[in-house]
Amino acid sequence: MSRNSTNNSYVKDMSDVLAGPTRDEAHALSRQKPYSKEDVLNGDLTGLGAARRRFLAGVAAAGGVAAAGALGGTTAKAEKLAVPEWSKSMGRPIEPKAYGMPSKYEGHVTRNRSDIFVNKQNFSDWSMTPIQHQKGILTPNGLIFERHHAGVADIDPDQHRLVIHGMVKRPLVFTMDDLTRYPSVSKFYFLECSGNTLTDWLAVKSKTVQQTHGLLSCTQWTGIPVSWLLDEAGIDPAGKWILFEGADGSAHARSIPVDKAMGDTMLIYAAGGEMLRPENGYPLRAFMPGWEGNTSVKWLRRIKVSDKPWHLRSETARYTDPMPDGRWRQFSMEMECKSVITNPSGGMQLKGPGLYEIKGFAWSGRGTIKAVDVTTDGGKSWKTADLEGPIMDKCLTRFRYRWNWDGGPTKIASRALDDTGYVQPSVEDIAKSRAIAGFVQHHNGIFPWSVSAGGEVKNAIA
Amino acid sequence: MSRNSTNNSYVKDMSDVLAGPTRDEAHALSRQKPYSKEDVLNGDLTGLGAARRRFLAGVAAAGGVAAAGALGGTTAKAEKLAVPEWSKSMGRPIEPKAYGMPSKYEGHVTRNRSDIFVNKQNFSDWSMTPIQHQKGILTPNGLIFERHHAGVADIDPDQHRLVIHGMVKRPLVFTMDDLTRYPSVSKFYFLECSGNTLTDWLAVKSKTVQQTHGLLSCTQWTGIPVSWLLDEAGIDPAGKWILFEGADGSAHARSIPVDKAMGDTMLIYAAGGEMLRPENGYPLRAFMPGWEGNTSVKWLRRIKVSDKPWHLRSETARYTDPMPDGRWRQFSMEMECKSVITNPSGGMQLKGPGLYEIKGFAWSGRGTIKAVDVTTDGGKSWKTADLEGPIMDKCLTRFRYRWNWDGGPTKIASRALDDTGYVQPSVEDIAKSRAIAGFVQHHNGIFPWSVSAGGEVKNAIA
Repeated sequence: MSRNSTNNSYVKDMSDVLAGPTRDEAHALSRQKPYSKEDVLNGDLTGLGAARRRFLAGVAAAGGVAAAGALGGTTAKAEKLAVPEWSKSMGRPIEPKAYGMPSKYEGHVTRNRSDIFVNKQNFSDWSMTPIQHQKGILTPNGLIFERHHAGVADIDPDQHRLVIHGMVKRPLVFTMDDLTRYPSVSKFYFLECSGNTLTDWLAVKSKTVQQTHGLLSCTQWTGIPVSWLLDEAGIDPAGKWILFEGADGSAHARSIPVDKAMGDTMLIYAAGGEMLRPENGYPLRAFMPGWEGNTSVKWLRRIKVSDKPWHLRSETARYTDPMPDGRWRQFSMEMECKSVITNPSGGMQLKGPGLYEIKGFAWSGRGTIKAVDVTTDGGKSWKTADLEGPIMDKCLTRFRYRWNWDGGPTKIASRALDDTGYVQPSVEDIAKSRAIAGFVQHHNGIFPWSVSAGGEVKNAIA
Repeated sequence: MSRNSTNNSYVKDMSDVLAGPTRDEAHALSRQKPYSKEDVLNGDLTGLGAARRRFLAGVAAAGGVAAAGALGGTTAKAEKLAVPEWSKSMGRPIEPKAYGMPSKYEGHVTRNRSDIFVNKQNFSDWSMTPIQHQKGILTPNGLIFERHHAGVADIDPDQHRLVIHGMVKRPLVFTMDDLTRYPSVSKFYFLECSGNTLTDWLAVKSKTVQQTHGLLSCTQWTGIPVSWLLDEAGIDPAGKWILFEGADGSAHARSIPVDKAMGDTMLIYAAGGEMLRPENGYPLRAFMPGWEGNTSVKWLRRIKVSDKPWHLRSETARYTDPMPDGRWRQFSMEMECKSVITNPSGGMQLKGPGLYEIKGFAWSGRGTIKAVDVTTDGGKSWKTADLEGPIMDKCLTRFRYRWNWDGGPTKIASRALDDTGYVQPSVEDIAKSRAIAGFVQHHNGIFPWSVSAGGEVKNAIA
């Protein structure tokens, strides 16, 4: 194959840019001098500081700048703008080697253990992602939610092994070096705990969307399809269920139907551009796109093929759904279509009537999001929200709706539709086929927030 | 608008899943007992530990597991698999509030100050992203490259102000609360320093791709189009250039043509799902998609409209390109189409002949990547690599090429094509229209790595 570089015209016709000067001419043209201590201390390196100070003095003298009238509530107020300290001094220099952290002013944005529904067992617990602070669709790696059954394993990747055995022609053992040598695949997917939103259908009500919906994260995951390794091992035709087991102290495990395992199931070693964090399964986890989080077994050490499911603790005592007739549904692993408004949400305070952008997430374990409706009048009417691309399969999708709040008390909520035609149900709809009792797993009901006349936003579950 | 929830059948026909048991039946079915200390210490919580130990004993006794023959070089070796400590103990419990960090075993993955081309000024320096370790297209927030002119400003967002003035009808001042109240937009974009790859055309050669191409990062950026605010301010028809100035000690600034500013230029306050990190401009920066990084002014405090460019220090003494006639091209801000192989790359060691996946990044400030070619014979022949979606405008695109290395010495390189028909040039092509001298900004030449017969990978720039 040959490609010609015929389009490499480096000097372009930029009609409103000056023709290039010589280096001496350039220095003469520049209004700036090389750095001096005095320049830095004056915060005046562009040579424009005096003009800026005159402008700002004028602003203060004139008593105000015209309001930014296009957006109610964001009036730019007149004020005396002192030159801040950080414009008059040198900042932190670059370290030889570093891993950056958020600003000290963002210390309130953390992954939090629930303080509403308190779990007494330190080692079998969960922490929630602050989705009310999340921008865009990506969850920062330091804020991806946690759910552990025996604490966070601290695994040496050089010692870690993955075993494939059971009803296979050739049992196999892999090192991490083996696995990362395979061609890799990266995919954007959401990850949601089956218990996300479970507490709010009980007597205890959560306050924030972090507490109600924070067992939800999204990033780009990198690894290999498990089907490649199972093909190498050679599944016995009678093999129908596949065990995925973790190397943590609880040996958390799940039985997965062979069709899912040979379909889009992945072995994941990286998330958000780097190797997995310990609490998210370092150095290796399973990943079942669109299925409840606990099936994406972390710290993965073993894959075993069988002709039937195992009926593990996590498939009987846990992660099952009560039905109206007193029986419990097992293996309900798909996370159905769901959405929630993250801004404004519980604990926030609106600053008077005016324009607000209602923002939130929609997602479906069945596929892609086709539409999201928003109500701002307690469900009397629903309007179509804007969806922001890229809209990806089994991935968080941002919806946005511009709302002009009249200052009256109301309730707001969202309702998502996926590409299978499934519509996020009301709580009443869910109650028709399931018992709303105990730990309600897989609760994807429409979730309302109330807004008071004072602008206070609260959990509005009846 | 009304949507019917007709598709909400919660109890589905899952033919290979058992009908739900009662809770008592479920407990009886389970092979697991509730946790006990003994269970945990034995690492035997699934009830399958004994079987696993028998299997592994068998593996050791039989002297080996069959090799994973499909992928040369990843033979699974027989070995005695002891139960590791982390499978026999409780791990780290969840903290009440936390911001997670990488595993201690990933401590070598850091953003590094250059140790090849050493800058003597601590406060005007850069650090490079370890792109050889990056998985997928996202750069973790802690590893996004840095370039500062007076160190990292530590700005209190409550005190920060953005001023818009100059040739406008209404000068405006904004607080961060004002700006974050606007409807927001999130976009995936690469960010590249104009000086990326500059040192390797000088006498000093870098060793790793972090050193040669690590002034390159990619994430999802969130903020608002600057055109919304400029429309509010009302640009004078004679206004043709717009100054963006930072609040850091250097007051770094650039003159931007009005068409770009009113086009896709954004005011960014978040990246990778959270508020910007201090070193990347917290709480506010400009973002010029596809343009050299220094135009995306960090710690943005001022936007001023004028009828001509300012010819700032960063537009004369810096960030200009030498031409063959001794003149210097100014305002060459677009980052043209480029690619590089990140795996294998300088400093890596191949473990003998066999299959390797050649991986790398391609990107273009002009638009989307259409194709990447890879040579594994020093440029004699070029083969088309696979591109991994989603392929987004002005965003890193992963290419992958499966290479069966025969063990002989050779050179490998990549060459990208964008949707304008522009082909990444050779160094010889670039030299036809520009002087390869001094700090060569905007160097997007095809970049070769040599592979020795021993598997050692090195920078192969002549």
